[in-house]
Amino acid sequence: MSYRPELSNASVNLTQEVEVVDERGRLSTIFIPAERPLTVYVDKRELVTLMTLGGAPEALTLGYLRNQRLVRSIDDVVSVHVDWSVDSVAVKTRNGIADIEERTAKKVVTTGCGQGSVFGGLMDEIDAITLPEDARLKQSVLYKIVDAIRTQKSIYKQAGSVHGCALFSSDGELIYFVEDVGRHNAVDAIAGRMWLDGLQGADKVFYTTGRLTSEMVIKGAQMGIPFLLSRSGTTQMGHMVAEKVGMSLFARCTGKHFLLLTGKQRLVFEPEALNIDGLRVA
Amino acid sequence: MSYRPELSNASVNLTQEVEVVDERGRLSTIFIPAERPLTVYVDKRELVTLMTLGGAPEALTLGYLRNQRLVRSIDDVVSVHVDWSVDSVAVKTRNGIADIEERTAKKVVTTGCGQGSVFGGLMDEIDAITLPEDARLKQSVLYKIVDAIRTQKSIYKQAGSVHGCALFSSDGELIYFVEDVGRHNAVDAIAGRMWLDGLQGADKVFYTTGRLTSEMVIKGAQMGIPFLLSRSGTTQMGHMVAEKVGMSLFARCTGKHFLLLTGKQRLVFEPEALNIDGLRVA
Repeated sequence: MSYRPELSNASVNLTQEVEVVDERGRLSTIFIPAERPLTVYVDKRELVTLMTLGGAPEALTLGYLRNQRLVRSIDDVVSVHVDWSVDSVAVKTRNGIADIEERTAKKVVTTGCGQGSVFGGLMDEIDAITLPEDARLKQSVLYKIVDAIRTQKSIYKQAGSVHGCALFSSDGELIYFVEDVGRHNAVDAIAGRMWLDGLQGADKVFYTTGRLTSEMVIKGAQMGIPFLLSRSGTTQMGHMVAEKVGMSLFARCTGKHFLLLTGKQRLVFEPEALNIDGLRVA
Repeated sequence: MSYRPELSNASVNLTQEVEVVDERGRLSTIFIPAERPLTVYVDKRELVTLMTLGGAPEALTLGYLRNQRLVRSIDDVVSVHVDWSVDSVAVKTRNGIADIEERTAKKVVTTGCGQGSVFGGLMDEIDAITLPEDARLKQSVLYKIVDAIRTQKSIYKQAGSVHGCALFSSDGELIYFVEDVGRHNAVDAIAGRMWLDGLQGADKVFYTTGRLTSEMVIKGAQMGIPFLLSRSGTTQMGHMVAEKVGMSLFARCTGKHFLLLTGKQRLVFEPEALNIDGLRVA
């Protein structure tokens, strides 16, 4: 069993019921997702405030520290304590964060549902990353993944306005599913869980409901995952980074449809997969 | 004629054509939106890097400085020069930004398609804002706005994966339409244009394709706009802030449908508007 820091297991309401009036003046109620601040303190020093749904605050905090490269190893984390009564999380590290001043000085406000501030050079690590050339994804597994997301119980189905991210094994088994008001938070929470469980990315598939912007592709690459799937589209920089690191990028994944943009050699086409369940693509 | 700083008029490609393979192995091309860094220098000091589509970089820069409350008045800005050859914009101010160290120290990573780092206290100004109580929006005007967005020529229609924001007059005339890979950029660009043109928000309507998260509501409030419309949904904090400042929040605006969440007294119901163009709501 690998090392795990001491973790709280904080929980909080993820949806709220509110009154609405529709176009005919009819009063009803709907559920909307929570959105709350979570201020991160590392060794009693305030680092950042994340706006989050609140479903996985410990994993989010760990994944944030990991993806921002503020903490290099899970072994360096002693404890993560979330306290929703003060909307904050206290992280205790073994040796502190070296050069924290310098490393949090450079701000990049990223795209779209952006990470916000990616401390340090956004592209600095990209050159060092190589994803496994020989990883393969079967078309039937891709469909299994899309279908698993479709049938997944979710805050989105109840309240809308959240993004979902999921990690799958290379044979299409769901490992984690995380939702957040920001897709950047959802991917950070997945990174945090992978850290806790000692999982590597090389034989995994990452799915997101959000767009494949540069930051999502960069984070996927940082996590070492060769496959990135989305029901949405991509951007020029997402595409460029994926080409650079040799990631397989699948956009517009719905039903049996998808558009494979980069890393095309990794898909194993299975024409028969188009007919599974009697569902055919026009 | 009000004061305008000296502005560049930089332009750059907003879409790129890329090769894709679909589920049947068919090769084709699609357009994807640009996403590029724009590093903001204020008086030769590096402030932040924004990831943007690149359609309105001067207005985006001004709106960013405005919405972050880094510059208080357009009169303080001498010039804004964008140079895409180095992906940067140079802003010259009359008197510099006071306390820039302190005011850029506090980082909030906002929700969803987050602004990223909203310098300073996210909620600090909210208490001081009051929106005009007597502003009214006719149901027919709301439909005119939704229809104007539907028929608007856009990068979204060509390439997807961008958010659009628009400013309308209270009788539904389109004033500005801006798209960006991040909705936070699109709203900042609108704020920049309003600044340049000396427009106030009290008699305007703001439309966004993106979700009504706290940051979008806060920015709308900062711009003094009483009406915020979205084709998407809202979050608990967006809802809470809207209630606090007395903003009228309309979610799920598509066709003749909408859900009015807050500031309900401002809508003028017009049952006959449901039948315009023979289109009826079920």
